[in-house]
Amino acid sequence: MLLHLSTWPEVDRYLAHRQSIILPIGSTEQHGPTGLIGTDAITAEAIAKVVGEQTGTLVGPTIPVGMAHHHMGFPGSMTLRPSTLIQVIRDSVLSLAAHGFRSVLFINGHGGNINTVNAAFYEIYEEARATLGDAAPALRCALCSWFALPGVGALQAELFGDREGLHATPSEVSVTQAVHPDHIKTASLDPIAPTAGAFHDSRDFRARFPDGRMGADPSLATPEHGHRFIAAAAAEIAERYGEFLAGA
Amino acid sequence: MLLHLSTWPEVDRYLAHRQSIILPIGSTEQHGPTGLIGTDAITAEAIAKVVGEQTGTLVGPTIPVGMAHHHMGFPGSMTLRPSTLIQVIRDSVLSLAAHGFRSVLFINGHGGNINTVNAAFYEIYEEARATLGDAAPALRCALCSWFALPGVGALQAELFGDREGLHATPSEVSVTQAVHPDHIKTASLDPIAPTAGAFHDSRDFRARFPDGRMGADPSLATPEHGHRFIAAAAAEIAERYGEFLAGA
Amino acid sequence: MLLHLSTWPEVDRYLAHRQSIILPIGSTEQHGPTGLIGTDAITAEAIAKVVGEQTGTLVGPTIPVGMAHHHMGFPGSMTLRPSTLIQVIRDSVLSLAAHGFRSVLFINGHGGNINTVNAAFYEIYEEARATLGDAAPALRCALCSWFALPGVGALQAELFGDREGLHATPSEVSVTQAVHPDHIKTASLDPIAPTAGAFHDSRDFRARFPDGRMGADPSLATPEHGHRFIAAAAAEIAERYGEFLAGA
Amino acid sequence: MLLHLSTWPEVDRYLAHRQSIILPIGSTEQHGPTGLIGTDAITAEAIAKVVGEQTGTLVGPTIPVGMAHHHMGFPGSMTLRPSTLIQVIRDSVLSLAAHGFRSVLFINGHGGNINTVNAAFYEIYEEARATLGDAAPALRCALCSWFALPGVGALQAELFGDREGLHATPSEVSVTQAVHPDHIKTASLDPIAPTAGAFHDSRDFRARFPDGRMGADPSLATPEHGHRFIAAAAAEIAERYGEFLAGA
Amino acid sequence: MLLHLSTWPEVDRYLAHRQSIILPIGSTEQHGPTGLIGTDAITAEAIAKVVGEQTGTLVGPTIPVGMAHHHMGFPGSMTLRPSTLIQVIRDSVLSLAAHGFRSVLFINGHGGNINTVNAAFYEIYEEARATLGDAAPALRCALCSWFALPGVGALQAELFGDREGLHATPSEVSVTQAVHPDHIKTASLDPIAPTAGAFHDSRDFRARFPDGRMGADPSLATPEHGHRFIAAAAAEIAERYGEFLAGA
Amino acid sequence: MLLHLSTWPEVDRYLAHRQSIILPIGSTEQHGPTGLIGTDAITAEAIAKVVGEQTGTLVGPTIPVGMAHHHMGFPGSMTLRPSTLIQVIRDSVLSLAAHGFRSVLFINGHGGNINTVNAAFYEIYEEARATLGDAAPALRCALCSWFALPGVGALQAELFGDREGLHATPSEVSVTQAVHPDHIKTASLDPIAPTAGAFHDSRDFRARFPDGRMGADPSLATPEHGHRFIAAAAAEIAERYGEFLAGA
Repeated sequence: MLLHLSTWPEVDRYLAHRQSIILPIGSTEQHGPTGLIGTDAITAEAIAKVVGEQTGTLVGPTIPVGMAHHHMGFPGSMTLRPSTLIQVIRDSVLSLAAHGFRSVLFINGHGGNINTVNAAFYEIYEEARATLGDAAPALRCALCSWFALPGVGALQAELFGDREGLHATPSEVSVTQAVHPDHIKTASLDPIAPTAGAFHDSRDFRARFPDGRMGADPSLATPEHGHRFIAAAAAEIAERYGEFLAGA
Repeated sequence: MLLHLSTWPEVDRYLAHRQSIILPIGSTEQHGPTGLIGTDAITAEAIAKVVGEQTGTLVGPTIPVGMAHHHMGFPGSMTLRPSTLIQVIRDSVLSLAAHGFRSVLFINGHGGNINTVNAAFYEIYEEARATLGDAAPALRCALCSWFALPGVGALQAELFGDREGLHATPSEVSVTQAVHPDHIKTASLDPIAPTAGAFHDSRDFRARFPDGRMGADPSLATPEHGHRFIAAAAAEIAERYGEFLAGA
Repeated sequence: MLLHLSTWPEVDRYLAHRQSIILPIGSTEQHGPTGLIGTDAITAEAIAKVVGEQTGTLVGPTIPVGMAHHHMGFPGSMTLRPSTLIQVIRDSVLSLAAHGFRSVLFINGHGGNINTVNAAFYEIYEEARATLGDAAPALRCALCSWFALPGVGALQAELFGDREGLHATPSEVSVTQAVHPDHIKTASLDPIAPTAGAFHDSRDFRARFPDGRMGADPSLATPEHGHRFIAAAAAEIAERYGEFLAGA
Repeated sequence: MLLHLSTWPEVDRYLAHRQSIILPIGSTEQHGPTGLIGTDAITAEAIAKVVGEQTGTLVGPTIPVGMAHHHMGFPGSMTLRPSTLIQVIRDSVLSLAAHGFRSVLFINGHGGNINTVNAAFYEIYEEARATLGDAAPALRCALCSWFALPGVGALQAELFGDREGLHATPSEVSVTQAVHPDHIKTASLDPIAPTAGAFHDSRDFRARFPDGRMGADPSLATPEHGHRFIAAAAAEIAERYGEFLAGA
Repeated sequence: MLLHLSTWPEVDRYLAHRQSIILPIGSTEQHGPTGLIGTDAITAEAIAKVVGEQTGTLVGPTIPVGMAHHHMGFPGSMTLRPSTLIQVIRDSVLSLAAHGFRSVLFINGHGGNINTVNAAFYEIYEEARATLGDAAPALRCALCSWFALPGVGALQAELFGDREGLHATPSEVSVTQAVHPDHIKTASLDPIAPTAGAFHDSRDFRARFPDGRMGADPSLATPEHGHRFIAAAAAEIAERYGEFLAGA
Repeated sequence: MLLHLSTWPEVDRYLAHRQSIILPIGSTEQHGPTGLIGTDAITAEAIAKVVGEQTGTLVGPTIPVGMAHHHMGFPGSMTLRPSTLIQVIRDSVLSLAAHGFRSVLFINGHGGNINTVNAAFYEIYEEARATLGDAAPALRCALCSWFALPGVGALQAELFGDREGLHATPSEVSVTQAVHPDHIKTASLDPIAPTAGAFHDSRDFRARFPDGRMGADPSLATPEHGHRFIAAAAAEIAERYGEFLAGA
């Protein structure tokens, strides 16, 4: 059940028995010479839809632009400042809380969002505590980055070994190829991309990773692999959904 | 050309000859008993895509949640505060400006966004003036609300007369039916919805418009009408795109 | 009754029977070679006073500086960023709400304020909803731009025809001449000022409108016309004041 | 020379030889049973006008609402939060700096503004340093509270002795009577008002100072005294204006 | 009793009988050629500890960085913007208020903090009023700058006469020598430092006070003097602590 | 070399050959029945001092209050909102950058700070990019949480096995005992503390971890162990300091 394809009476009925919602969050940023700029939003949304189906959970709108400062050296990348993204997360969660939603699971496609989204959860909790005190709703916010799930990691290793890398990876590119098989891009790529993981600002990032890839060989991507990643990630999240609900 | 389905080298090549981009902006809010909660994002995105094709303009990610406080009395509605939305618009435009984009056309599906998005443009211009002075880029931001275009208004009048109304209208519902023909909702509706246009906060809105419609009869919507609205709106925007570029 | 010329016991007595207040809002910005920089505050305040008298409504302090980025290319213009003006409106309204005021009518002299002030109303409503929930006061905020009232438009057309223009207009200059007959400025003006209405930032504005006028011929202004505009605008607002109170 | 009664070409000519401006700042707050709610704005503006005349300095618009939280227990009082007032001061000063103004003297009528306005100056300086570095304009901001000038203090002592008090004082009420002789309010006042100067929040203030006065006997006020205070304060500020310009 | 050396059950027991806390606030900024950059935090903390012992009051963590824009022309100086420091003070006080603390005395070592910290108190009070109304806790915040206490002033005059000056003073340097006798710095100093007290931004400050001292001769400092200042300041604050509690 | 015990000429000389600085960051929060509320600041500062000595790096002031919302259910805990802490980090780093510092290593004692501090780094980088563009300084910010270093983990396992736990751990308590051997607290503790790691807001935390400990047995702490942890953590950070400088 997708929020944007539902009516308010349908949501009203949903809330009568369930107070959970999933929000996909992605990014709009370079993904190397062949990766789509919308990769992180596309992957998060695709996986969230399947999780929603498997668990009977409502899925809200995908946040398309995240915190991607470090990719700003490449044309087409967009970023919110962390302080802006915190307010977007806050307003989104508090809007949902007003209707009775009590648990919000963000399914995330972009590593650069992790710190800021987690910080946002505490911004929300602390504001609720300070203004509402004991009357604050018992909100449970959680973030799940699909690409870092153990089962997904096993599949990455099985299919791509050390050519998976850290950015513009064959696993995420595979997912976008599964979703958009008519938008598969090719380029002649040096199979060896720089692998050093650390970087500072966006200029530093571009200097270290000239074509945008971090140790990844996205030429290994296929739509078939993508379908396997969607299935694996969704199954793992669905299986662990109860943990989230339990706050465990 | 869609930004999220492009690679950074493709954007790089685009920027070599053109510095315009379109950003659709919608809302996530109730649209009456049969309208989709994502209506305003769906319509803005659908029309923006066609405008992009007809004018050869890049189309960026859709902002899915806008300023919809007044709909918060209905389950599933989400809103950003105006102050948050201003920062989202600001960060989005300044991200694009960093790559050389100089004109940003927001194609808008929600009346409630108009004031805030226009305020955001001046937030951007004033910050650029104050921090960069004469070195500020010559940015041109504009907002086009498809539902308020003259040609669209003529079609609304022709097809629906005074049953078009102001919210959850048959024209916008038609567009969502054209885009998502498998998500057409029906309900037994009182054909007469309250038509008084003014309201204050979200409680006042719900008291005045109990099922969420404002003077609209969305039972008149059809996918065919939707295709006509998409075509009409896109053609009108495409034709006037030059005006925007000229700042006229 | 003017708030700044009242005592707190007088306000206390007023609140016992009436919870409405008027706040004039202007701008401090260039108004062409002969228009006063304080034009928009002067006009809003003059008209608000008469409305206050005719309707028995308290009139609060005039906000003298508004959102006037686009005039910053001309010496003496001042502007608040939209984000600052939103907070000023918010604090002003919430201060008044604390005493029991429930409806606040802003009488506005400057087109550039419209988007931001309307956005501010939703900032207020949404913050009240999020922090106070059902205990939020039932506030009714509205904005009335005197220069855009139908009756005022008819008078503009009658007296000045197409020489009224859009900025530094003979109608607003007339009002300032009526209020400050000892500060009538003259200059040799090209009767034809550029009329294109669209512009982007402050540099673009100055380039398009070199002397600050937008299609206006303020040499037609007279104090007598000014008195007529004050009377016409005030009467129209006073007559429609009930609509505002009814939220209609 | 008053900014709001000037045209932009007049300001342009002024700036060719002088880069100073005066901004009056007041408050909208209770001033006891007989004091006007606009007292602090009225007094600051009246004195600023005379200083402007005597020193040939431009006088900008009066900031009518200041930081008056502690008076919020009395109907009609309005306040900006300190964080809002800081942004208002910042935007005002940076607007003027954009035109070439380099020194801004705030003539202040309200003790409650002092901390916030001084904090705002450092907000401005620090932002300019951080964003513009050595290119930051050499701004000189200063605050002068007329009621705390030594010469004014001598006159307060001479005319009212220990009945001057700290709030709703006969000196400030006298000034408003001089400016608005047709708005002199009377009430039967206990000549002895609580004199303890310390307080915390607005409830504490009202509990300590039940009718709003702090140790003051405003029944001693006369318009004649008011004219003397305006003259004395203005002369003292005008005489010391050079110190301000010298930054001494 | 120091908060950072206590456990939560100890604080719980403390709160059962007393709801006061002391927070030292300093600065990290140049103090002339021989003064420590941490001077203001060191002095505030040292004195606060003794006050805490003498009055049985809990002492919280020292805020080490304050508002020191004007010292930014000298290496090693750090500053918070006033707007940031206001939020730090707000969050600190509201954290403590959540546990039942009702009076917070800031013992301050830096003149540059005074305006901002006092502004912060009103930010707190006003936010509590606006969001909590009558349910807001009765908070009492106060700021005591040890170096400006009357008794301390007498000792400064007795020991150093007019060589005390205004910044990098022998009194504050003496206190740091008492606390850190192994970090006494010496340099050949011109005994005459510029004494003009007024300045604007950090460049202006450095131009007027080239080595960072303002009219002070810190070569007069000794650890023995420092012990006397600590004792004198602490005794004076402890004696007047009741005034603070009474809000007098 | 400690910044607060240095003079500005000493910092000036330091900067001539080195542009690195260390900032310890802690928290003020409950650490179980026997742990000090200042634990995280004490540990971070103690380890940072040794790192500073071993690497010849300047150590700045300790940030004593961090992001500790989840501990607010226990008396004495203090927290900054994430949005406030981001501004504190921003202002601190930009202050240092103004003097020529180019790398800032935060040595962190509190897990709850990690997300927010990392988010702050991108706030800084993005603001610098947006306002300064290519002229932005090449800043390198990094965060090192001493308790999560591999070598420290090995020592935790060796000394405490699975009784180390996650909060109020014997390792951190040991460090505070080494630094403050005169403030060792004891209590009769249930050796088994709840170990579930997940929690949501501060009420949820207190419900899950009633005495504040998370799976830890701090009764195993000794000052001797503390000295070993300080040495091990410092040595590991010092050894890897080059990686940080290289951005590796």
